[in-house]
Amino acid sequence: MADPYDILVIGAGPGGYVAAIRAAQLGFRTAVVDREHLGGICLNWGCIPTKALLRSAEIYHYLQHPGEYGLTVDGKVGFDAGAVVKRSRGVSKRLADGVGFLLKKNKVDVIWGEAKIESAANGDEPGKVTVSATTRAEPPKGALGAGSYAAKHIIVATGARPRALPGIEPDKKLIWTYYEAMVPEKMPKTLLVMGSGAIGIEFASFYRTMGTEVTVVEVLPQILPVEDAEIAALARKRFEKQGIKILTGAKVTKVVKAADSITATVDVGGKTQEITAERLISAVGVVGNVENLGLETLGVTMERGLVQTNGLGRTSVPGIYAIGDVAGAPMLAHKAEHEGVICVETIKGLPTYPMDKGMIPGCTYCQPQVASVGITEAKAKEQGLDIRVGRFPFVGNGKAIALGEDQGLVKTIFDRKTGQLLGAHMVGAEVTELIQGYVIAMNLETTEEELMHTVFPHPTLSETMHESVLDAYGRVIHT
Amino acid sequence: MADPYDILVIGAGPGGYVAAIRAAQLGFRTAVVDREHLGGICLNWGCIPTKALLRSAEIYHYLQHPGEYGLTVDGKVGFDAGAVVKRSRGVSKRLADGVGFLLKKNKVDVIWGEAKIESAANGDEPGKVTVSATTRAEPPKGALGAGSYAAKHIIVATGARPRALPGIEPDKKLIWTYYEAMVPEKMPKTLLVMGSGAIGIEFASFYRTMGTEVTVVEVLPQILPVEDAEIAALARKRFEKQGIKILTGAKVTKVVKAADSITATVDVGGKTQEITAERLISAVGVVGNVENLGLETLGVTMERGLVQTNGLGRTSVPGIYAIGDVAGAPMLAHKAEHEGVICVETIKGLPTYPMDKGMIPGCTYCQPQVASVGITEAKAKEQGLDIRVGRFPFVGNGKAIALGEDQGLVKTIFDRKTGQLLGAHMVGAEVTELIQGYVIAMNLETTEEELMHTVFPHPTLSETMHESVLDAYGRVIHT
Repeated sequence: MADPYDILVIGAGPGGYVAAIRAAQLGFRTAVVDREHLGGICLNWGCIPTKALLRSAEIYHYLQHPGEYGLTVDGKVGFDAGAVVKRSRGVSKRLADGVGFLLKKNKVDVIWGEAKIESAANGDEPGKVTVSATTRAEPPKGALGAGSYAAKHIIVATGARPRALPGIEPDKKLIWTYYEAMVPEKMPKTLLVMGSGAIGIEFASFYRTMGTEVTVVEVLPQILPVEDAEIAALARKRFEKQGIKILTGAKVTKVVKAADSITATVDVGGKTQEITAERLISAVGVVGNVENLGLETLGVTMERGLVQTNGLGRTSVPGIYAIGDVAGAPMLAHKAEHEGVICVETIKGLPTYPMDKGMIPGCTYCQPQVASVGITEAKAKEQGLDIRVGRFPFVGNGKAIALGEDQGLVKTIFDRKTGQLLGAHMVGAEVTELIQGYVIAMNLETTEEELMHTVFPHPTLSETMHESVLDAYGRVIHT
Repeated sequence: MADPYDILVIGAGPGGYVAAIRAAQLGFRTAVVDREHLGGICLNWGCIPTKALLRSAEIYHYLQHPGEYGLTVDGKVGFDAGAVVKRSRGVSKRLADGVGFLLKKNKVDVIWGEAKIESAANGDEPGKVTVSATTRAEPPKGALGAGSYAAKHIIVATGARPRALPGIEPDKKLIWTYYEAMVPEKMPKTLLVMGSGAIGIEFASFYRTMGTEVTVVEVLPQILPVEDAEIAALARKRFEKQGIKILTGAKVTKVVKAADSITATVDVGGKTQEITAERLISAVGVVGNVENLGLETLGVTMERGLVQTNGLGRTSVPGIYAIGDVAGAPMLAHKAEHEGVICVETIKGLPTYPMDKGMIPGCTYCQPQVASVGITEAKAKEQGLDIRVGRFPFVGNGKAIALGEDQGLVKTIFDRKTGQLLGAHMVGAEVTELIQGYVIAMNLETTEEELMHTVFPHPTLSETMHESVLDAYGRVIHT
């Protein structure tokens, strides 16, 4: 066995590769193991390739409405499904290659295969990890292969995979997960989307824009269940205007497959209806990849399929750490990356503190976009907080009108006594890029006074963020 | 004469109408006088209608490059110049009408005509303003007309107008200002733009995208002279790639007019060249509208054509206030609006403090966009400050690549000792919407530590803001 690594990370998704790079920056001899792809689901089958698909859909929408901007298209507008997918795959490949480059530049070893932790470090004895060969994917150039590796600190960053509902298991052909939905050979004429979280809604938005008849079924009473009810309601209204059919409080109870379609039985408030569609996307959440890693044998504490940590990455077993999706919600790449940094900085002995999960923003890249940070109005009331709520609609914003994007809403929630910003919720054009201002504000423990004194540039959509704060205090100008 | 107003505002641009609405909110009996348009230059001939034109140009660019997104256009793409302009005028009208609605809703009287201040308030005696009829534009419905009005507090918010260079005076036909450039009957085949500030560069960007051959002449050594040199250099590179010809350190010394074109003699570092173009846009700055208001007679202190104030809107004459462009740089709508609010809140006796002009962001909506707040690297060095500089390129950002917008740069400047954020400078897609995060951070006196701990959402362009901070401290991940 070669010299032990200081840090060995299992999983090269965003949490894993960022942890590895940061570890190398801190002087640790570092390796990262993966069995399938550098960059993980996020870069290869998640955040990134969907954004590429949605960009094509956005531009396709413009192409179909030139007259709204004083433009003309004398001819037929269309798309090449293969080219749209190829562009998306190209973006993923470019970024995954980039991760390979960054790991190499930072002198992080890449080990290719399935990792199993044989033992954790014990005193001077490093932990042991066996890596066995995988047939899932070819190793990147320069990767180390199967074998036994030693490491003082082992970080589990194995991510998550789609959850499957019994009887409605994905089959890669008629019942899709995000894997198949990302690379359609052709656009289905009809599509049923099961689940209205970020993944379900983004695919619904993409396919609808490309001309597919889309129905979304959500078991809870509102779509985008983690978002503020008012924001979700406005988003729903816009989706329905685009022709997306939405059933909430609805459950798919049975799916019957035909040669090239499915028929789903859907229970909506006690009444059943049948919906036939060419394809079904199952987007009912994810489960952590905790299996076959040796975690149970080592006695690592898990709960509901997720590794328990102390907020700084440490598990119940010294020398074993966990970050990202496998360590619990919110299962977001940016949360995983920060956990990775915190974990290795803690190992280094730097002063660190657990991330405040109440300050992690969430984004959904549908049309219109949705973004939020902090608690919803309902949650604030549930907690018995005395709040002030501000609202500002995009229709009062000059830039929104100039863009032709005047449908949106910004909602801010403040603690009435302290003026603390408790939550911010947005729906509308570019809100995924705007939300960071509120995140910064929350991190700096801002109050309404400071936000009111901040000069937001004109004319920008970001002025809606200012006016929503003013509205909470009866000082709004443009409504 | 009717009952005196508490507050009478001269000029219904952003500073003026916002001051009036805020005054009304505070319980003041308020009026606003204008001679031409509600919403001022900003809404009618500036910020807003240019954003509408630039939106058409943005979409036109997409229409010309469908293949980049996997899309197809089987036919000819074009534009209807009249329809592009009509859309822009419609956006302006909608917003100007909106200002009328807001003033009415807040019970602010609108008085139509040319205002002249006869006297300032003296003890219990209110100030006097004579309003004479104007033929410039029809009054909005319900506006009061010419006459004598009394007011305890008179706020001058008369804005600015294009500066004219001797011998190159705008003539509405061949030599344009923003007025004519905003409503072209057809797109000129060739265009010379004199001045590379925000106005000049935005028109250069618009016309170039619409197919015009554009040359920009700038007397200073860099375009966008108020921006950080590195940012301006990257922007220039992109503009030149789009086919805009740029001459810096260059001066138009003579313009000869023909029937439907001009020929300019341009001195570039001692060598002269002649440039013939169908139209010339003069964008060499603006001058304050200080004339015929009675300011000199009243003894209001002015300097270089601008009204001097104490930072809270008070001029040298009690009872007379000034806000916005007429009160000095930076001549930006958002600065004017905040000055308006500060001015009337001070009159009300609320605790206020002068705006920190170092925290006012600036935006240019060219392609790529440019945005900044605080001091440039050159300015920091000039001030002898010990700084750390962070840089992050868009090419390292997943969302930028997914959008097909991988050319951009974020530059952050920190005080080495205190970690204070001194300046942030951005060029790239959507940076005008991103900059607010840094503005909030500066207002909250953030340090690099707090920004590094902030979780920016993935995948967004805003992650470049985080990485630029990390880079300043040797902790960047994605380069």
